[in-house]
Amino acid sequence: MTSIKERLLKTVVEPVSGGKNKITIVGVGQVGMACAFSILTNSVSSDVVLIDVMADKLKGEMMDLQHGSAFLKNARINASTDYAATANSTICIVTAGARQREGETRLDLVQRNTDIFKGIIPQLVKYSPETTLLIVSNPVDILTYVAWKLSGLPKNRVIGSGTNLDSARFRFLLSQRLEIAPTSCHGWVIGEHGDTSVPVWSGVNIAGVRLRDLNEKVGTDQDPENWGEIHKQVVWSAYEVIKLKGYTSWAIGLSISNLAQSILRNMSSVHAISTLVNGFHGITEDVFLSLPCVLGENGVSRVVLQQLTDTERDLLQKSAKTMHEVQSGLKF
Amino acid sequence: MTSIKERLLKTVVEPVSGGKNKITIVGVGQVGMACAFSILTNSVSSDVVLIDVMADKLKGEMMDLQHGSAFLKNARINASTDYAATANSTICIVTAGARQREGETRLDLVQRNTDIFKGIIPQLVKYSPETTLLIVSNPVDILTYVAWKLSGLPKNRVIGSGTNLDSARFRFLLSQRLEIAPTSCHGWVIGEHGDTSVPVWSGVNIAGVRLRDLNEKVGTDQDPENWGEIHKQVVWSAYEVIKLKGYTSWAIGLSISNLAQSILRNMSSVHAISTLVNGFHGITEDVFLSLPCVLGENGVSRVVLQQLTDTERDLLQKSAKTMHEVQSGLKF
Amino acid sequence: MTSIKERLLKTVVEPVSGGKNKITIVGVGQVGMACAFSILTNSVSSDVVLIDVMADKLKGEMMDLQHGSAFLKNARINASTDYAATANSTICIVTAGARQREGETRLDLVQRNTDIFKGIIPQLVKYSPETTLLIVSNPVDILTYVAWKLSGLPKNRVIGSGTNLDSARFRFLLSQRLEIAPTSCHGWVIGEHGDTSVPVWSGVNIAGVRLRDLNEKVGTDQDPENWGEIHKQVVWSAYEVIKLKGYTSWAIGLSISNLAQSILRNMSSVHAISTLVNGFHGITEDVFLSLPCVLGENGVSRVVLQQLTDTERDLLQKSAKTMHEVQSGLKF
Amino acid sequence: MTSIKERLLKTVVEPVSGGKNKITIVGVGQVGMACAFSILTNSVSSDVVLIDVMADKLKGEMMDLQHGSAFLKNARINASTDYAATANSTICIVTAGARQREGETRLDLVQRNTDIFKGIIPQLVKYSPETTLLIVSNPVDILTYVAWKLSGLPKNRVIGSGTNLDSARFRFLLSQRLEIAPTSCHGWVIGEHGDTSVPVWSGVNIAGVRLRDLNEKVGTDQDPENWGEIHKQVVWSAYEVIKLKGYTSWAIGLSISNLAQSILRNMSSVHAISTLVNGFHGITEDVFLSLPCVLGENGVSRVVLQQLTDTERDLLQKSAKTMHEVQSGLKF
Repeated sequence: MTSIKERLLKTVVEPVSGGKNKITIVGVGQVGMACAFSILTNSVSSDVVLIDVMADKLKGEMMDLQHGSAFLKNARINASTDYAATANSTICIVTAGARQREGETRLDLVQRNTDIFKGIIPQLVKYSPETTLLIVSNPVDILTYVAWKLSGLPKNRVIGSGTNLDSARFRFLLSQRLEIAPTSCHGWVIGEHGDTSVPVWSGVNIAGVRLRDLNEKVGTDQDPENWGEIHKQVVWSAYEVIKLKGYTSWAIGLSISNLAQSILRNMSSVHAISTLVNGFHGITEDVFLSLPCVLGENGVSRVVLQQLTDTERDLLQKSAKTMHEVQSGLKF
Repeated sequence: MTSIKERLLKTVVEPVSGGKNKITIVGVGQVGMACAFSILTNSVSSDVVLIDVMADKLKGEMMDLQHGSAFLKNARINASTDYAATANSTICIVTAGARQREGETRLDLVQRNTDIFKGIIPQLVKYSPETTLLIVSNPVDILTYVAWKLSGLPKNRVIGSGTNLDSARFRFLLSQRLEIAPTSCHGWVIGEHGDTSVPVWSGVNIAGVRLRDLNEKVGTDQDPENWGEIHKQVVWSAYEVIKLKGYTSWAIGLSISNLAQSILRNMSSVHAISTLVNGFHGITEDVFLSLPCVLGENGVSRVVLQQLTDTERDLLQKSAKTMHEVQSGLKF
Repeated sequence: MTSIKERLLKTVVEPVSGGKNKITIVGVGQVGMACAFSILTNSVSSDVVLIDVMADKLKGEMMDLQHGSAFLKNARINASTDYAATANSTICIVTAGARQREGETRLDLVQRNTDIFKGIIPQLVKYSPETTLLIVSNPVDILTYVAWKLSGLPKNRVIGSGTNLDSARFRFLLSQRLEIAPTSCHGWVIGEHGDTSVPVWSGVNIAGVRLRDLNEKVGTDQDPENWGEIHKQVVWSAYEVIKLKGYTSWAIGLSISNLAQSILRNMSSVHAISTLVNGFHGITEDVFLSLPCVLGENGVSRVVLQQLTDTERDLLQKSAKTMHEVQSGLKF
Repeated sequence: MTSIKERLLKTVVEPVSGGKNKITIVGVGQVGMACAFSILTNSVSSDVVLIDVMADKLKGEMMDLQHGSAFLKNARINASTDYAATANSTICIVTAGARQREGETRLDLVQRNTDIFKGIIPQLVKYSPETTLLIVSNPVDILTYVAWKLSGLPKNRVIGSGTNLDSARFRFLLSQRLEIAPTSCHGWVIGEHGDTSVPVWSGVNIAGVRLRDLNEKVGTDQDPENWGEIHKQVVWSAYEVIKLKGYTSWAIGLSISNLAQSILRNMSSVHAISTLVNGFHGITEDVFLSLPCVLGENGVSRVVLQQLTDTERDLLQKSAKTMHEVQSGLKF
């Protein structure tokens, strides 16, 4: 007897399995899964592949997403411990990496993650030589440099998630204080992701009205309204969320989905993301820091040249020097 | 000196804080948060309130979502341990509840969850007397009955997530076997959510072609192709995902978001959800089981009367009796 | 014999017909239909009612939309020549109105449209006393004033589409010149919709970098790069599109859908829309002009106070005076 | 002096202009534009090219869409009378064609459209040899055959919009009668698009419950409830909409957007679309008719074999013979 499938369907041509908008996500921890789920629910990609070394967890996450595929416009979700499954990915998102051990130096941590990246980046590039790498693992700026070095890809196609999330937090906090939607509150946090990030107060505006023109001390220590507190909260809130719930996931997932969409739709939209900044704002080292970048199908095509204050430039240059020192100690 | 806000904005009228599509989610565990995130990324609601007794975890989840609000079409996310924050919710989703302890009887578990629900359901109804309750906590069918009893709401406005997810899993597995999109694979799993759910093989079809018309033994023990295996996998896959990743989250979150959308858009779409089934398929007890229901703004308006086999009816009636026994032992 | 419907469905409770996000659109010309279609495809509302006096055209448009409802998340589309069908609309969009006849004065045209509005506005308010009016008919600023007068609604709930579209055109033209996404090009066109609109060059920026800080003559006659040409193109492009295709439709439809979404989701996002400007920028007449407004569920809650140049203020005040003269001649 | 652009932006690499999801639409009449607008508002493609011979109308439509691009996730919209602009389109949608003149025979009309297609199809294939052709022009089934012949493309990559729209109308009318969402009403109209289309009553079902099992006469002349009227309305409503508003646009636009999405997301979803049916249901001619097809990135991969009644088969075979006769008279 012929099978139900044979009786039901007559083949015209074998269906293809690939997708032109294929995205690989390495690491299925809370961050990796929030990225995957954001990308799927926002319909950014219809073809997502998960990679991890923990086969059980990996399979469980894959199955859980697959069970929802009728609610995800029939997206295909696959998972494998073998990088062959990632072939022809348009974007590869890397969330894998070790966390800091107690007493461990920053260099030791970065070296450990560099060693982990040695097992990831070349494999990704081998199977998707035309891909754009989007690095999320921390410390993200140095690890984006490491990924660039290990990948051999041109600098425009290696990106770190950087301060795209810090800027989103900054805009949310502005929105709370002004009772205006976050998307109508404009402000940019640049530089090193984390404690030493730099809010560019000169550009903070609502409908083109700069807060600095309403209060020239805004963002400084002399500001009686203490708007600078907002940036402190941006820095502090990452720690706060980790303290309260154990990790951060949703906002970074949404931030990555937002970047992936700009790439896949070739949007040329501007995002604060980590890019090679040698030559910008007086920086002379091969380091990655976040600046506003024009992002599209071939990655970062242009960088927006903000007019920074001396203090802001100093902060960027200091970050660059510190990071360069750490990078100099790395063994590839 | 006047503040930046005063110099920037002139008030015409105070903005309102509410939203006509407000959704409350009780419980910020993995299931509750997957529900919240699905509802937000799918733009089902622009006003979500989280409730839990664990104030730290609750605040962490709220902050993490809020940081992404610029990527969520400016949705408002609030959280509180106080039910006053839930006032005027259109839908209240309950994911809170205790898990089975080793050696605990089913009745004991249900009694413990009933006691938990005593602290939740009346509070929700107090602040949102016009709400629709959507119960997700397990065992979902009995707890939907409990919520109905505790709420005093009409039966159409108390719903359990039931076998909407089981049906999604069934359709995904069909899609894998036939290489056809899940949304084009039609099949319904009804009855009790979990081990004793009932796949209605007579209705399984692709483009209106019933698999049973291609193979009259489909779904039975005599089927040489063993399609019945698909339903076994539906039952087994819930356990498998829990074994592999520790819990299920994404698919149930998407399933709930799908139901919430049908209610808020007043869709009258058909879903397998847990409803009061006294009077259907020979059932004579006040119990909740999943049947295909027409779902809209006022909850379940109609139930689709499927033509079940004797075996299928027996399974439903048996579930009803068992559940009724458990319910009879509950102390309200 | 019982009917198929009786055999198929058992009623629990009668379904309700309304929707909490109901939108009425008056006028089913090219503009009205582009508004309706944008609102439906963007899932802004699930319940749209069309009103017109041309019963045939009206029915044809309703049927054409209804045939697509399976692709519109099951939205309900109704149409009627009777305003009773609009009851309880959250937003009423008015696109109806007469076009200028050859040789007709502006006052005569406005009087004719005022007479038309007398048959529309009181009917809308009668059936939806809590609605927000969104006026699209031209000349939009004066007709928004007329609608406000005829409606008796508070000023925050009567809005004109104003320069939201002019601003979108301005941003598109910036994006073309800079090769950056329109959503990353920030600029505001305010004042009277049409020939005398005012581009606020001081606020034009990319990632917070003001073009004026790069070239202080930007937007003036002394600018060697002639960026002012962009605003001339904004004014000219409305005429150009009408000359080329006979009318404008898509962009205004999308612009209105964007405003409706901000209201229904209670976003508090900022849009350049026509609002009562007596008291702003030295204007002392009861006229409506576009300024950046915070828009949410109760309409315009706040107005952003931009720092205008003397020339910009003069242009606004001149528009106000001219409009006030026309308004003084109207018979209500 | 350097330009603002040079001062603002530093180039890393030139941005690319293409898009992996590029769609070309030939013909900017009401149907073509409804297709374009549906595809853009549904975010199916971020790169749409319009082609027509009427340069003015073409430019007007392009500008009108471009002015809305900030509301269309920064989609790129281009237009040209030169097919070079269509290079590397993933899908080419053809809506161009002549309408029937009074007294003109069907053969004469088809010959005129064939002559028009001679100027379109080879140009499309020249610039996008890997494209999938989606034909909308009427009579759609014969013109899909003509496009297949002129293109030299494999049969899986030449598709006619066929009865996807007729099926949507059928489902809407079912939904009206049953008060159930169109997406929950399942029914298939196959065969020749238009007057001789065939409703497959055996497959009409709600939640897997076949109407035929509730009333075995459903869809026949003996049915006291006269459900067959629904199919008559499907046929009649196309004429009715044209009579009432002059043309049909919204529903066909949404239907095409739905097909384009299935292709670009490689969905393998099932649609009633026009495909080469030689060898199906006893048809022995090289003609195109609609059957339920599995649609994905490489077009039609499989056809669902419905179990038709003798009457249904006869209708299909008769359509095939009539169409084959017309096709035999065509001069290529």
